[in-house]
Amino acid sequence: MEKYNVAILGATGAVGAEMMKILAERKFPVNKLKLLGGRSAGKNLDFCGESITVEQAGDKSFEGCDIVLGAVSEDLARSFAPAITSSGAVFIDNSNGFRMERDVPLVVPEINPEDAYMHKGIISNPNCSTIIAAVAVNGINRRSRIKSMIASTYQAVSGAGAGGIAELAEQEKVITSGGEIKCGVFPYRIAENLIPQIGSAKENLYTSEEMKMQNEGRKIMHLPELAVTCTCVRVPVMRSHSISIVLYTESKVSVEEAREAIANAPGCVLYDGLSEGRYPMPIITSDQDLVYVGRIREALSGERGLALFCCGDQIRKGAATNAVQIAELLIK
Amino acid sequence: MEKYNVAILGATGAVGAEMMKILAERKFPVNKLKLLGGRSAGKNLDFCGESITVEQAGDKSFEGCDIVLGAVSEDLARSFAPAITSSGAVFIDNSNGFRMERDVPLVVPEINPEDAYMHKGIISNPNCSTIIAAVAVNGINRRSRIKSMIASTYQAVSGAGAGGIAELAEQEKVITSGGEIKCGVFPYRIAENLIPQIGSAKENLYTSEEMKMQNEGRKIMHLPELAVTCTCVRVPVMRSHSISIVLYTESKVSVEEAREAIANAPGCVLYDGLSEGRYPMPIITSDQDLVYVGRIREALSGERGLALFCCGDQIRKGAATNAVQIAELLIK
Repeated sequence: MEKYNVAILGATGAVGAEMMKILAERKFPVNKLKLLGGRSAGKNLDFCGESITVEQAGDKSFEGCDIVLGAVSEDLARSFAPAITSSGAVFIDNSNGFRMERDVPLVVPEINPEDAYMHKGIISNPNCSTIIAAVAVNGINRRSRIKSMIASTYQAVSGAGAGGIAELAEQEKVITSGGEIKCGVFPYRIAENLIPQIGSAKENLYTSEEMKMQNEGRKIMHLPELAVTCTCVRVPVMRSHSISIVLYTESKVSVEEAREAIANAPGCVLYDGLSEGRYPMPIITSDQDLVYVGRIREALSGERGLALFCCGDQIRKGAATNAVQIAELLIK
Repeated sequence: MEKYNVAILGATGAVGAEMMKILAERKFPVNKLKLLGGRSAGKNLDFCGESITVEQAGDKSFEGCDIVLGAVSEDLARSFAPAITSSGAVFIDNSNGFRMERDVPLVVPEINPEDAYMHKGIISNPNCSTIIAAVAVNGINRRSRIKSMIASTYQAVSGAGAGGIAELAEQEKVITSGGEIKCGVFPYRIAENLIPQIGSAKENLYTSEEMKMQNEGRKIMHLPELAVTCTCVRVPVMRSHSISIVLYTESKVSVEEAREAIANAPGCVLYDGLSEGRYPMPIITSDQDLVYVGRIREALSGERGLALFCCGDQIRKGAATNAVQIAELLIK
């Protein structure tokens, strides 16, 4: 079996660390793993029993690499991309840097794997909430094209990286033990609070994060006219994003048909039994790769509408797992 | 000035205790205050410097009362209602017991005060999320009739009473200091989690709480055909409910018109400035009576739609304050 030289750019962040874990878990055929960082250079990390030293990322870091998994900011992704692609490696980038570029496939392997093969050196990993929502509604979309969606998110602090997780934990400690609540990663206190802004303000009064659900959703599901009203809200939850979705389809999809479509959709778990208390929740969807979907019912607010609630691990399926799955497509 | 004999039925719960506080705060002209309870009978509580002993509630408790504020379960409200009304008192009931009965007004004083005067002994206080949502959208509805709404809630633990608040606090303590997380009030852990079920399962796969947004919303806003798809979610927040709303009106209401309507609507604060980080959040709306409304923007998912995010104190405007405001209407 062929083995590949893989690099993780941003290896010590929440997503980068998880990528390393998932490469091992899924037995990705790694020849040599290179860990690249900035301030974390020099740190030693364990990969399958081998100690690997994090190297300072630079333009020469990518020589000899087959695949580079990116878990850094948009700015860093943009600045390293030319060196990565000119080294001949494929850059699977988790940032927002290239997602909407025409030549860059935006891939959720359960939905549009074929797009991955049209890459010109860069493949983008979609936004985390968008991945989770798209995996949840993909089965219904195959039954009947989705025309519009209203999505309200309940997004975990892990979406802001390891610092977000630490900040919630620290604030909870202060609440229970006393002291002063400090905000750094989030603009306001997040413990026992909600923040209805994720990303920056756009001209149309949506946030950048909210527009991803529509724009990335269109590209992933090949629905150029999909219309999405999205509201993104940060909640005091560690690492699973939840999304309350109402969607309208071209032709009517019954609740029973929707349940069947979701049960058969790859990457999905139909977890739907209100009267038995069975529905997706962060406590059951964290630290695993599937998107749980429940609370499936007919919308009361318009024709051909369905409502559902879905939940998935933000760091794994929302980021690291999806990136490794894209790498798996490339070596198939 | 005339003074009134007031009783609080369920005086030591989260809502009952707040009712007592609000009667004092708003200087309601109380002649004699009677506090009624069950297990809490014998307890002494302070009201405006006077110590009042909680009495065991019984059918004779209401003699001589002008107004009874109810802060007990639906079952208890139903069992005491005949004794209250036959004593000649007006029963302002916070439970779900009578809300949809034809002869019982369902009143949000900022929206339909006139309905209060048509009572036959009982006036119902609406569901807490419904009050907050209705106050938020009332101004827009006066501009152009609302035809449909999609609402996803972020409901505080106080909605489950004092026990809900204690349970979240206790679970947070366990998370930070170790031990075993125990669930009693909520069916699952609520700290660092979400529970997408509030109320019981109905035949149409909605919960009882979700249907209130449509059915009570219709009665309060005099919109018999209002169609609402609501998803109710419990979140680890202490006492403010938040609601993400997309609504569709009969004729187009621009964002500017909506902002103006909300700014002028009674009980509302226009708190809307995404680029300056100004939007409703539980930390700013708790322990006060106004409903904050922000994130106002055009819906992208259909014609004549608006999206907004609102937030208000569940115990106060969502329950106790609204009940005392109804009492104020009666003595006007």
